[in-house]
Amino acid sequence: MGLGKGDIAERALELAKHADEVLVEKYSSFLEEGYMEWVEQKIGKKPKEVSREDLEQSAEKTVEMAREKEVVLLTPGDPLVATTHKILLDIADKEGIKTKVVHAPSAFSAAIGESRLSFYKFGPVVNIPYWQEHYKPTAFAKTIARNLELGLHSLVFLDINRQEGRPMKIEECVDILGKADATEKTGLFKKDPYVLIEANLGRDDQELMLTKLGLAAQLGKRLEGKILTLIFLSSIGVDEEGVKAFEVRDYQ
Amino acid sequence: MGLGKGDIAERALELAKHADEVLVEKYSSFLEEGYMEWVEQKIGKKPKEVSREDLEQSAEKTVEMAREKEVVLLTPGDPLVATTHKILLDIADKEGIKTKVVHAPSAFSAAIGESRLSFYKFGPVVNIPYWQEHYKPTAFAKTIARNLELGLHSLVFLDINRQEGRPMKIEECVDILGKADATEKTGLFKKDPYVLIEANLGRDDQELMLTKLGLAAQLGKRLEGKILTLIFLSSIGVDEEGVKAFEVRDYQ
Repeated sequence: MGLGKGDIAERALELAKHADEVLVEKYSSFLEEGYMEWVEQKIGKKPKEVSREDLEQSAEKTVEMAREKEVVLLTPGDPLVATTHKILLDIADKEGIKTKVVHAPSAFSAAIGESRLSFYKFGPVVNIPYWQEHYKPTAFAKTIARNLELGLHSLVFLDINRQEGRPMKIEECVDILGKADATEKTGLFKKDPYVLIEANLGRDDQELMLTKLGLAAQLGKRLEGKILTLIFLSSIGVDEEGVKAFEVRDYQ
Repeated sequence: MGLGKGDIAERALELAKHADEVLVEKYSSFLEEGYMEWVEQKIGKKPKEVSREDLEQSAEKTVEMAREKEVVLLTPGDPLVATTHKILLDIADKEGIKTKVVHAPSAFSAAIGESRLSFYKFGPVVNIPYWQEHYKPTAFAKTIARNLELGLHSLVFLDINRQEGRPMKIEECVDILGKADATEKTGLFKKDPYVLIEANLGRDDQELMLTKLGLAAQLGKRLEGKILTLIFLSSIGVDEEGVKAFEVRDYQ
């Protein structure tokens, strides 16, 4: 269904209109307020919400629904970015159940596009997850540091706080990154790269702000409640590409 | 407008329906046959085709149209992947002309999604251009080789043959890559990586085929006339991710 209200492909609406069953999952990302009501009105029926459990632990059972009936699953973003949805297709393939994917706008391409940076200068994408008692990953810090060394920008997605049903805050992200940086000695805070913060990407209230990593947490209040996508800028070629224009915008 | 017929966002159709002027560019990629006729019928007017010249050399003049009127520009793929469209926004910003971007499905996310590989294991994207008498770039071979060394997959887009109005053929791509490989001594053909070929991505006749680089050119006849997106697979983690399943499909 894409990023903001109305991003859904026209042919996806048509398929949902004529399907026997329409499901929707809302846990892999956040939908804009009022989006589902808008979809319901467009397709003339109320989609049935499926949980993470339905799509992960009970994936076989969910796929099985599509053996006799035409089932449409609506998802935020582009449907094949999340691993969960790929597994559904793998199961359907194995079971001989026919599937069809309708693509949608993804933060993956939209975030790079909105930065106006060159697509060819991005290294591997990074995800910053919450640290838990027995799960304290640090690989993302190494990937960002390696990208910087290679003159590549890093597109960074932030985790979802599932208990509180909200996106990760910029202060939390900086804190986790700081701990990973200290553990791995990646020197990220010492290098203090520019960070382009994209808030509510693809929505009408989208905002872009350029800051330094060391100053990013100060924007916490300003960014409260917003869904954030970050781009850590390699210093190479940034001026030339005009991204620094974002810096002078009135955002503080 | 995305990849295949009907990929266009519902809100893009609405904007076009109410715009004073609707433009369309068809040179940055290929539109599915019959797509424009379908769009025309949906929005109730015939978009005016703009050339590469209108959007590049005469970009200021084209942007100027939007000073007094509401102008919608329809583009293939996601509008901000091509540099041309970003420049239009830069000009509009400078001129104080308000713009709004509606995102769309892009080969950038759809190609990775359809491969069912992890998004986190892709290095920088690569574009393979035609060699010309005084322009024989080789950097793409180095990027693919570096990605392989780092255990990263490479998403590869192919050039458009503008004289003949057709996409680059797989034989041409292998030939150019071979020459760049020989010049740069990247050893790509010696390593002979798996290549996932995605033909007509996002369309109803989309096909995926896994082959080895050394054998790819043999698929020329089978792939004739199709738009190709390639993924050069790092050997790391390929079995685990189930991509080799594509290999057993009936495609030869």
